[in-house]
Amino acid sequence: MLLHDDPARAFMPYPAAEVPNAPSGPLSGLAMAVKDLFDVAGYPTSGGSPHLLALSGVKRQTASAAQKLLDAGARFVGKTITDELAFSLNGKNAHFGTPVNGGAPDRIPGGSSSGSASAVSNGLCDFALGSDTGGSVRGPANHCGLFGMRPTQARITLDHCVALAPSFDTCGLFARDGATFERVAAVLLGTDATPLGGTPRLLLAADAFAMLDVEVRGALAPVVKAIEGLLGEASLVEVAPEGFEPLYWAHRRLQAREAWQVHGPMIERYRPPLGPGIAERFEFARVVTDQEVGEAQEVRTRFRERFRQTVGEGVLLLPTMPDIAPLLTETEEALNTYRNTAINLLCLSGLSGLPQVSMPVASRMGAPLGLSVVGPAGSDASLVRLAARLG
Amino acid sequence: MLLHDDPARAFMPYPAAEVPNAPSGPLSGLAMAVKDLFDVAGYPTSGGSPHLLALSGVKRQTASAAQKLLDAGARFVGKTITDELAFSLNGKNAHFGTPVNGGAPDRIPGGSSSGSASAVSNGLCDFALGSDTGGSVRGPANHCGLFGMRPTQARITLDHCVALAPSFDTCGLFARDGATFERVAAVLLGTDATPLGGTPRLLLAADAFAMLDVEVRGALAPVVKAIEGLLGEASLVEVAPEGFEPLYWAHRRLQAREAWQVHGPMIERYRPPLGPGIAERFEFARVVTDQEVGEAQEVRTRFRERFRQTVGEGVLLLPTMPDIAPLLTETEEALNTYRNTAINLLCLSGLSGLPQVSMPVASRMGAPLGLSVVGPAGSDASLVRLAARLG
Repeated sequence: MLLHDDPARAFMPYPAAEVPNAPSGPLSGLAMAVKDLFDVAGYPTSGGSPHLLALSGVKRQTASAAQKLLDAGARFVGKTITDELAFSLNGKNAHFGTPVNGGAPDRIPGGSSSGSASAVSNGLCDFALGSDTGGSVRGPANHCGLFGMRPTQARITLDHCVALAPSFDTCGLFARDGATFERVAAVLLGTDATPLGGTPRLLLAADAFAMLDVEVRGALAPVVKAIEGLLGEASLVEVAPEGFEPLYWAHRRLQAREAWQVHGPMIERYRPPLGPGIAERFEFARVVTDQEVGEAQEVRTRFRERFRQTVGEGVLLLPTMPDIAPLLTETEEALNTYRNTAINLLCLSGLSGLPQVSMPVASRMGAPLGLSVVGPAGSDASLVRLAARLG
Repeated sequence: MLLHDDPARAFMPYPAAEVPNAPSGPLSGLAMAVKDLFDVAGYPTSGGSPHLLALSGVKRQTASAAQKLLDAGARFVGKTITDELAFSLNGKNAHFGTPVNGGAPDRIPGGSSSGSASAVSNGLCDFALGSDTGGSVRGPANHCGLFGMRPTQARITLDHCVALAPSFDTCGLFARDGATFERVAAVLLGTDATPLGGTPRLLLAADAFAMLDVEVRGALAPVVKAIEGLLGEASLVEVAPEGFEPLYWAHRRLQAREAWQVHGPMIERYRPPLGPGIAERFEFARVVTDQEVGEAQEVRTRFRERFRQTVGEGVLLLPTMPDIAPLLTETEEALNTYRNTAINLLCLSGLSGLPQVSMPVASRMGAPLGLSVVGPAGSDASLVRLAARLG
């Protein structure tokens, strides 16, 4: 391990290997952690699974997303723990442990990019790569008090990376402060084809905010007001006029089907003992029917079109998560309830493919609480710049 | 993986590496599996722990016990699943799974050398290396219907191997048939310094047999009778005249203290999520007091002397385990109860350092049941030859 000390238990304890980086560049001086879902030459890749770790061997090629950052001068400091096969929002890996949430040590860090969020929030690195399929960057960013980005679908190439649900998988990023976040995102994203205008129209997902407990809405209200002060009053929009439930199911079923296509053969062959929640979700994935998938595809297509129209060239304010992170001591049942509400919020970007950035703007009971901005497809870099300014 | 198919899920799914063996030799033509506690050059070593696997890297040196067998012509076919940190008798690894018991597929394979016993009992190799600290070869041999050897303490050098409790750790061996067992053991053990005589005096551990349920005694009785037909009537001896309880606790405490010395630093540093039973046993290990250890040492010293006198130059018949393997569906509680009785039987060799061989001689309800012979220190190879003849 490159870190001599890992008090947050954020990193996989792999033997250190030399990972060359450019001697100078725009990210020179920044320490980078990489979710153990991306290959880094000289290291294995576990994907949070003991079986994948055993199957892995030592990788010879670094994922292009990580390579781009090394080529810009970032210094690799370690691979971070991920939830098992990245199929969780909790950050509790039954095999590799639960990294410490640097923003609220008595609460879950969120997942699946748990170790990346832990490493950044505990100051063990300057920024970290994560992946976000159904919220795996946005959730931990909310929980640990970080900037977190889910880019436009397919904006950042995901090669040499353990997949979960390819049509949802994205390469995300965490940083503590807006300046670092913007600096790294600029390298990762390059130039926007369709940047945001100078003062984009502000929208607020009224039906999404309506889902929150009154205390959570109360914690976010002054932040919304401050943003309106900068960008002008937000227009209230309904993001799910037919309700969140069809979106929730479309998201879960499509993601589950793809996850089974990716990992089903491994699971059926080795029958790995999957951790709490992971086993149940793969069992759900195994039995999703073609008809359900077909219907979900239709829901996705309709939603994608309508939601992209709703966002237009504006910026949508959206709660990142239902609340602050649940306590580490919560039951699996309580975590599941939280998760089901969270998916209602998280599935909007996933189904539409639009970029979303969570900003660490508020807190409740001493724990961080995020707020998200969603922008038009391809506006990622300018959305990050806006978020860095607002956050 | 060298095996294209692993229907018993006995092997760790590592990428195949070339493991050179002698082109000819006494073990030529035999396929060997190695418990994933021993290093084999070109492979990592997990010790059944995801964290040790992550820490491992690829090993450059093969454990001398395995190397000796390769040098005798045995062909390496894979590394087998072990219970987590080898600290269980069940064969249920919460991270890598439960290998299939080839002698009773609805029952646990036993552990910690679970994959080795599974691979041999399912015909996936001819023999396998295991390790036996507190019964980790003898238990699975009983459960899967195999010959299994625990040698005289320190008879076989344990280098390049994950330790559990060094003063108890031994390098053991599994085979299906007596001829193969004898052939491999001869290479592994070399020549006895103090071989058994032609017709050694037969002893029977009366108080150990008295612990068994009547059905188990009934299943073993005809075997004992047949052995008496060959070696003469057995003298009844008491192996634990002060009762088994002090031996049980001495064994548990000494083993636990050593296990904590070996793995405590790793556990405190990484806090790995340990599987059911393993976590509890390491917690027990953490809090064993110096006074308890001191008293246990005294019990061990007294027992060792007396038990070695009892066995003398004879051969002691001893039930290997309390019964056939528990069902896979048994509760942790039931497995613990079974385990506690088993330790009473298994601790005799552990505390005394004497060699023990379990023979697959009986069955109950369609599942295998073993019987053991214990011999004097250093009589290992001749004890194996005797067992091959009796078994």
